[in-house]
Amino acid sequence: MDLPPPFQPPERVLLGPGPSPTAPSVLQALALPTIGHLDPRFLDVMDEVRGMLRTLFGTANELTFPMSGTGSAGMETCLVNLIEPGDAVLVGVNGVFGTRMCEVARRAGAEVTAVEAEWGRALTADDFRRAAGGAKFKLLCAVHAETSTGALTEIAPLRAVADELGAMLVVDCVTSLGGLPVELDAWGVDAAYSGTQKCLSCPPGLAPISFSARAEEALRARKQPVQSWYLDLTLVANYWGGERAYHHTAPINMLYGLHEALRLVLEEGLEQRFARHARNARAFWAGLAAMELELLAPEAERLVPLTSIRVPDGFDAAEVRRFLLEQYAVEIGGGLGPLKGKIWRVGLMGNGSTRKNVELCLSALRLGLIAQGRRPRGDPFDAAQEVYAESVA
Amino acid sequence: MDLPPPFQPPERVLLGPGPSPTAPSVLQALALPTIGHLDPRFLDVMDEVRGMLRTLFGTANELTFPMSGTGSAGMETCLVNLIEPGDAVLVGVNGVFGTRMCEVARRAGAEVTAVEAEWGRALTADDFRRAAGGAKFKLLCAVHAETSTGALTEIAPLRAVADELGAMLVVDCVTSLGGLPVELDAWGVDAAYSGTQKCLSCPPGLAPISFSARAEEALRARKQPVQSWYLDLTLVANYWGGERAYHHTAPINMLYGLHEALRLVLEEGLEQRFARHARNARAFWAGLAAMELELLAPEAERLVPLTSIRVPDGFDAAEVRRFLLEQYAVEIGGGLGPLKGKIWRVGLMGNGSTRKNVELCLSALRLGLIAQGRRPRGDPFDAAQEVYAESVA
Repeated sequence: MDLPPPFQPPERVLLGPGPSPTAPSVLQALALPTIGHLDPRFLDVMDEVRGMLRTLFGTANELTFPMSGTGSAGMETCLVNLIEPGDAVLVGVNGVFGTRMCEVARRAGAEVTAVEAEWGRALTADDFRRAAGGAKFKLLCAVHAETSTGALTEIAPLRAVADELGAMLVVDCVTSLGGLPVELDAWGVDAAYSGTQKCLSCPPGLAPISFSARAEEALRARKQPVQSWYLDLTLVANYWGGERAYHHTAPINMLYGLHEALRLVLEEGLEQRFARHARNARAFWAGLAAMELELLAPEAERLVPLTSIRVPDGFDAAEVRRFLLEQYAVEIGGGLGPLKGKIWRVGLMGNGSTRKNVELCLSALRLGLIAQGRRPRGDPFDAAQEVYAESVA
Repeated sequence: MDLPPPFQPPERVLLGPGPSPTAPSVLQALALPTIGHLDPRFLDVMDEVRGMLRTLFGTANELTFPMSGTGSAGMETCLVNLIEPGDAVLVGVNGVFGTRMCEVARRAGAEVTAVEAEWGRALTADDFRRAAGGAKFKLLCAVHAETSTGALTEIAPLRAVADELGAMLVVDCVTSLGGLPVELDAWGVDAAYSGTQKCLSCPPGLAPISFSARAEEALRARKQPVQSWYLDLTLVANYWGGERAYHHTAPINMLYGLHEALRLVLEEGLEQRFARHARNARAFWAGLAAMELELLAPEAERLVPLTSIRVPDGFDAAEVRRFLLEQYAVEIGGGLGPLKGKIWRVGLMGNGSTRKNVELCLSALRLGLIAQGRRPRGDPFDAAQEVYAESVA
């Protein structure tokens, strides 16, 4: 083949469901010279990453570190380490990622019971209780922030249900970590996973996970080895923990990037960061409402970092996305599975959650609608402006 | 916790078993702005990466792309996609990575037969034939370049054995790809995996794999789903292939880095690159011989990118490594498992394979020996110089 030229990425404003825009200092960190995965100085990076992740996860869990794969590898890590063949697992399903948890759990040999809710709606403690029907379960799994729909499921109330079922509580925090409060210890979560390319504004490639002492105990009491060698926490923990034993070669430069991304989160402060995400989301929603666009999730069950907009009747969803990409260099996401062609997904995550991006996206969507013959009556910018004015007052 | 300062890596010359020194333009590529994993422009990067990997692997295999994990994830990908519970698998074991293949295969439900050779020696076709004892196998697995010992096993002769056993041929090319000829099609390899942090001089984090048409067919004829959802090639191939269907969020910036690293390999030219690796290795070996240091693998079975040196009696192997790191900022590796404390492992891989590094490492080792009371009689620099002089003549 001919030698391709060096790649030069086009200008993009990443307002889809992830990746979000990477912070400039994170990009710089990625480009620092590679050192060895067992270098004494690299061990400091690892310890600092673990410490910062504990703060973000709201936990003191010893077993807290990033796995060497993307968010889906984090999901698989939690499930294959805790499931043995024949285990009963209860999974909340209100979108793609709940569905994926069922699939991953089944492949680990679990007997899966799905707790269904309409896509775009939250799941409640009673939904889980009813679906369990009095049976016992090893795991109760829930998606905190369902990236495929924009629905937020409250995790704290699920602890009581998990206790009734004798279950450990496993939570998907991929789109919430760093953008919404996550409090593993206060909520009584036993295992959680996330990704780096959402509210942390680090490129995709790592999956922070955290296991409670109880989950660690279950892990050590396994009768069979974990089916995945690569994701086996009994081995990976020896590298991240005291023995520093070689398991696999950690993705050094990606870990530089995560180190810097976590630093930026803590430098901003978690409360301030959550408030920024909430303010920009509310301004965006106000602008959408002014354009008479409807959101998939009701406000009380709605994610702050990711908003799903119903595609108005008669509109070509993909065409509007293409228009935004070509005319504004703005990337937004489409719907997945049954929601394909029915929603747009807009992420205002991490570095992407700015007033400028809210206005840019409203402007781009407005013109996208006009290009397909629908001129919004309301003024989205005034509506957004009011939210910002309130938050200053 | 207190906010840690930005990380600033120390100066290091990476001459261990990997990671190797990352090329400057690869570091720059890592720092390019993140774009979306479904961006039309990113699809070009993916296609170019696939094309370049085919050239490096010496294959026309359609199913050729990097998995989103490190080399060990590549190993697990090859094994879990091809093994179903109860399958008989024959694995060549002459070091850590053959041992690891047995472990991964067992966890996938295989009945594993190990073909043992002394650590530091190659395995031959007859070793496999004898161990098979006339039985049939689904897979014959071999490590081309055993990173834990520095032994090279010839792959081409194994095709005939695999045919006798009715087996597909699976090969670990982690430390050979880009540093030694790899010819999957000419050798009749059915599945191969590699890593990015050895002779490609890209940071760790991706695992190039390649499956032959026959292996693809076996994959599609599976009775059970692949036990790992994350590594399931029937799904991953839909993202890298025609449908471009979302599976997981690909590690965008790491793929920028691999794109550039592969470009550099092809820009240099494979023949030139292999010759450079061989020349520097021979010069290094000549220098070691002048210092009366013995190598673990006999020359005919020795890897070019990675050299294992026997630690002379009475020497503290770890102390010498520490000396090199502290006095010369040179990282070399130690032995693993039964070779712990018995060998040093020196990688002259990718960007690390230079005359300057050969001389630096000889100099550092010489002083390391002197510091422990053994002054080499021969002059390692003269000996190395002779090799370079020959290659110019």
